[in-house]
Amino acid sequence: MQLTFLGTGAGRPSKTRNVTSVALALAEPHNGFMLFDVGEATQHRLLGSKLKLNKLDRIFITHMHGDHLYGLPGLLSSRTYFEGASKLGLYGPKGLRSYIEGVFEHSGAHLNYELEINEIEAGVIYEDHRVRIVAAELEHRVPCFGYRIVEQPQPGPLDLAKLIALGVPLGPMYGKLKRGEDVTLPDGQTIRSLDVVGPSATGRVITILGDTCPCDNAVLLGQDADLLVHEATFATGMEEKAATYGHSTFLQAAQIAAKANAKRLVVTHFSSRYHEDDIAKLIEEVQTTFASIEAAYDDKVLEISKSR
Amino acid sequence: MQLTFLGTGAGRPSKTRNVTSVALALAEPHNGFMLFDVGEATQHRLLGSKLKLNKLDRIFITHMHGDHLYGLPGLLSSRTYFEGASKLGLYGPKGLRSYIEGVFEHSGAHLNYELEINEIEAGVIYEDHRVRIVAAELEHRVPCFGYRIVEQPQPGPLDLAKLIALGVPLGPMYGKLKRGEDVTLPDGQTIRSLDVVGPSATGRVITILGDTCPCDNAVLLGQDADLLVHEATFATGMEEKAATYGHSTFLQAAQIAAKANAKRLVVTHFSSRYHEDDIAKLIEEVQTTFASIEAAYDDKVLEISKSR
Repeated sequence: MQLTFLGTGAGRPSKTRNVTSVALALAEPHNGFMLFDVGEATQHRLLGSKLKLNKLDRIFITHMHGDHLYGLPGLLSSRTYFEGASKLGLYGPKGLRSYIEGVFEHSGAHLNYELEINEIEAGVIYEDHRVRIVAAELEHRVPCFGYRIVEQPQPGPLDLAKLIALGVPLGPMYGKLKRGEDVTLPDGQTIRSLDVVGPSATGRVITILGDTCPCDNAVLLGQDADLLVHEATFATGMEEKAATYGHSTFLQAAQIAAKANAKRLVVTHFSSRYHEDDIAKLIEEVQTTFASIEAAYDDKVLEISKSR
Repeated sequence: MQLTFLGTGAGRPSKTRNVTSVALALAEPHNGFMLFDVGEATQHRLLGSKLKLNKLDRIFITHMHGDHLYGLPGLLSSRTYFEGASKLGLYGPKGLRSYIEGVFEHSGAHLNYELEINEIEAGVIYEDHRVRIVAAELEHRVPCFGYRIVEQPQPGPLDLAKLIALGVPLGPMYGKLKRGEDVTLPDGQTIRSLDVVGPSATGRVITILGDTCPCDNAVLLGQDADLLVHEATFATGMEEKAATYGHSTFLQAAQIAAKANAKRLVVTHFSSRYHEDDIAKLIEEVQTTFASIEAAYDDKVLEISKSR
């Protein structure tokens, strides 16, 4: 799993940080990826990365504020330049459909691929054999979702030495055993899956939250996550201002990660008033609250290690 | 007068060319400037220029296609971060108002300055003491305007030696004479403005066209222009394809400039299929048709010399 930060600033772009977007590739980027939020010029950032628009499968929007949203019409339009682009799933709050349809109608845009728009409610919003995605509402000035991306459990490894010793012939029986089924050999001997397959591996969990004040759902979504992406718009000490605007401080993000027992925290969505050295200092200050904290920056790529 | 190309590509951004936008400063950029079209990430390009959003006075949209338009909501929103930003005039085709209002309603955007939206028709669409702007319809797949920006004639210089010799006292009479009024001295002598003021200087003319096939209005708008900005989406020889999509080739742009007797032609809005050396070759090929042709590139700044 690979996470790429395409924009890590709040409100408006600066010379160093674009407005919000994060890409998640479950395997290699050329095998497909998802986007979480699409601030203006997200497609420009993709041009400089390994992520190609025709490999984009799904987009999740956290909330309907411009700095998370205004790059969507252009990105969707540019994807049309790739011949044979596959169906694209778009997920987000109510209003997403009429926003996109309105912009496309005014600008005479036509897509050459199927766009499936899903206005979601809290719960499991997407599932396939690789991943399950759960959404829950956060606390912001407008309806805003956080997303918990859970990799499906992976079957354990076959114990090949044991299979050979037991005389299991190479072939379809291996697949059955791996899938948890018991098999019977031609000599009548029953081989139990449990005896020849190692324990299944828990999938990794990535939590990507939209703009929010500290709230219970942030903790629920981030519970035991291998990686939690949490906003930290304001400096520690500015909790009152953060509350007014529906945001969090660095300290509050660290507290949520600690409560959730997350393994690793990446903070993002910094106000443009903070320079790089301010951010480094703000990170250092809250390491007593949550040690595994780091700051996102544009084009940062994170490999998310296998848990267990 | 200073022209800055912020985006010179067609359809979608590439690594080297952003989608369309051109800035025009009548004097120094810090004294105010105008934008013609606002493709996505125009505000990002401004961050790297001398053009600051709070000095933006007016925006002119040529037509309602995404690559000329999708940067508008973000740019207008970001201008709100400048305290005390002045009124902004926005001009363009029908549909511009409901596009902007629709996007702002969906994204909960509020501006802290007055936005005056003008859905224009052909004719003089703006005039002040410095400039007059005329719009006319071009030939594209959707209604599309070209803009002729005419600097107001500048009063000629006062002949100071003559004024002193005639005994005109230093003071308000100088201003009256400069403005073309005759004055009477205390001794009853009448001084004619014509006798003491040099010939007025013709203002410069800049013509900035939207996407278009070759058409009469392109010639009219570009007549004797000091600088004509014309699209050249396709290579010379691809006139049939250009016509299908409502565009021009390099040769057609050169022919329009020649017919209009323009002094200088800058072509822009190149399809992303062309690399820099292709463009250089395409330019060279049509110099027999119009010698003073050059290619725009992103961040190109042109000083437009005084005609008269």
